[in-house]
Amino acid sequence: MKDIYLDNSATTKVCPEAAQAVMRLLCQVYGNPSSLHAMGAAAELALSRARQAVAKALGCNQREVFFTSGGTEANNLALFGGAAARRRLGNRIVTTRIEHPSVYEPALQLQKQGFDVVFLEPDRWGNIPPEAVFDAVTPDTILVSMMLVNNETGARLPVEAAAKAIKRTGAPALLHCDGVQAFGKIPCKPSALGVDLMTVSAHKIHGPKGTGALFIRKGVRIEPRTFGGGQEQGLRPGTEAAALIAGFGAAVEALPKSADFLAHASRLKEHLLFRLEGTAGISFNSPADSVPYLVNLSVEGIRSETMLHHLAAKGISVSSGSACSKGKRSRVLAAQCLADGRIDGALRVSFSRENVLEDVDALVEGLLDGMARLARR
Amino acid sequence: MKDIYLDNSATTKVCPEAAQAVMRLLCQVYGNPSSLHAMGAAAELALSRARQAVAKALGCNQREVFFTSGGTEANNLALFGGAAARRRLGNRIVTTRIEHPSVYEPALQLQKQGFDVVFLEPDRWGNIPPEAVFDAVTPDTILVSMMLVNNETGARLPVEAAAKAIKRTGAPALLHCDGVQAFGKIPCKPSALGVDLMTVSAHKIHGPKGTGALFIRKGVRIEPRTFGGGQEQGLRPGTEAAALIAGFGAAVEALPKSADFLAHASRLKEHLLFRLEGTAGISFNSPADSVPYLVNLSVEGIRSETMLHHLAAKGISVSSGSACSKGKRSRVLAAQCLADGRIDGALRVSFSRENVLEDVDALVEGLLDGMARLARR
Repeated sequence: MKDIYLDNSATTKVCPEAAQAVMRLLCQVYGNPSSLHAMGAAAELALSRARQAVAKALGCNQREVFFTSGGTEANNLALFGGAAARRRLGNRIVTTRIEHPSVYEPALQLQKQGFDVVFLEPDRWGNIPPEAVFDAVTPDTILVSMMLVNNETGARLPVEAAAKAIKRTGAPALLHCDGVQAFGKIPCKPSALGVDLMTVSAHKIHGPKGTGALFIRKGVRIEPRTFGGGQEQGLRPGTEAAALIAGFGAAVEALPKSADFLAHASRLKEHLLFRLEGTAGISFNSPADSVPYLVNLSVEGIRSETMLHHLAAKGISVSSGSACSKGKRSRVLAAQCLADGRIDGALRVSFSRENVLEDVDALVEGLLDGMARLARR
Repeated sequence: MKDIYLDNSATTKVCPEAAQAVMRLLCQVYGNPSSLHAMGAAAELALSRARQAVAKALGCNQREVFFTSGGTEANNLALFGGAAARRRLGNRIVTTRIEHPSVYEPALQLQKQGFDVVFLEPDRWGNIPPEAVFDAVTPDTILVSMMLVNNETGARLPVEAAAKAIKRTGAPALLHCDGVQAFGKIPCKPSALGVDLMTVSAHKIHGPKGTGALFIRKGVRIEPRTFGGGQEQGLRPGTEAAALIAGFGAAVEALPKSADFLAHASRLKEHLLFRLEGTAGISFNSPADSVPYLVNLSVEGIRSETMLHHLAAKGISVSSGSACSKGKRSRVLAAQCLADGRIDGALRVSFSRENVLEDVDALVEGLLDGMARLARR
């Protein structure tokens, strides 16, 4: 049975270039990058090359790239470190109801600490209206955190509007963008978006799990949350995960051009919509202008987990909501005010550059077969 | 030129078993452990196997093992999370002047936050006297943090005395032990030592850099520092570094018996002492009963970095102080009140199971040659 992996927004298969880079650092260049001898210097050189690759992809300087253990740590660092650094300048934080838990939960913690946290709500199509952003950002706003692409629906969020709102009000706010589901796929240069902080992750772009980075614009200071040996300019100490970081860099270097990837993903998405649109009992939860590599759909009357296991038995991997929510009802879809049945039957299909049209055909047949068999129960 | 790597307390070469486990998770079992489909379940199974391996080595239950991005994160979590959880029960924290920066710096931060932090000083041989521990632990002590083996000198610290002191005073203190330089080398079961929290790391025992764990005794609650998707029982969320963790588990499974490793290291250390003892200009900074796999010595009149580069040119890797201090004067040796010249000429030699007597011979010849050439300048 062929594995048909359509859960690439949860994580991706590591590409050969990244795997090779990891192995090289594990077995040959195994020094501690902080060591002064040749073996240490070689490891430091590998780190530097990876940092350059990430910086190039972000269109920034390599001193603006701070490696972390992944998106969750980078998001936590941006929220807590950003809020702490600007605490004296105001008390308002603006974010959205549809952020990833690693932004949403820290925002709730900051609310508990006394910050006035505003959660912008999506409309019923899953979009955050730009007008709402302009209304929310006030002159005492110190932090705005908005993801670029939602991890459950693929909705694009109005990050540029947030940058404009901050500029217009003169708020002392840092603008953080969780770019995990965008990086390496759609253009997302911090300078073009006007963001101060941006989170990226390796394992969504065929790099290894356990590494990511926080972009911090030159001149922006945030408070560290971890203390120790001074690595990553003192902001994120600890012996660097050198092999993972080298793999991250190699995965970035191996990325196809954004336009090519988007064209490929669009073909897959169009094929999926073409084959399923009009099928009774299937509805789509992603906004019309969402990214092409992620489709959220609902199968009426069949719970996500039931369909997921039916598909898994055929070797097809998709997810119910996000991998991180593990069976809990989706906060993101609930915020869109979708009917309960539609939320409970939601499936997320997410493409990589390795998927082919036949994968979509297999998914469609699996879904139709599942609807015929499972609905009767 | 053969690489002679004698800097194993900075980091180690990854063993084949660990490298293979990493590769398997990168390229085959690449699912997100939180995903509900088969690919996710297989990754979760690999995590679970690694957790069992670490738990077995610690003599604890696998639900007491929380994976982190390494020793630094685990130490920070223990210090800040432990202090936050017990804040209402007292204000005193006891630690030592010779802790790793990832304990020492958080302790300084807690001091800034208003905690009464006591730093125990070592004697001139580098030992923390057990009596000092008994004097320092008071009934309002909420946290004691003491490493088991010092990373610069190999001194063993009186962790059991700290456990007794807490028991005797009835203090509401959590006992944290940084076990990074001890784990996998000397016996260090938390239950035998009487500790509540213990930090371990993969990359000091031939596992990959970027993963470690915090042991948290069942029933002990500490505050999380990271918020998000609920992984690691909610204490340390973020997609797990599955490949690294699998490599960690494999490295633990591949560990030789402690007695065998110690016998091997003792042969190397004795050979080093035998060949160098009595050499004019060389003095030893490690206590008499320090661990056999780490030797700190000073070469009179030659700065550490100078000798280090001389040795590096011969393919021999040792370190000056610790890898993390990167050329700064050693706080640990300064606390021993050694003369400045002795501190400035300190070298750390650290053995792994892969080193042989000939490596020691090469080091000795390199040192003697260096002393002859460099002293004249």
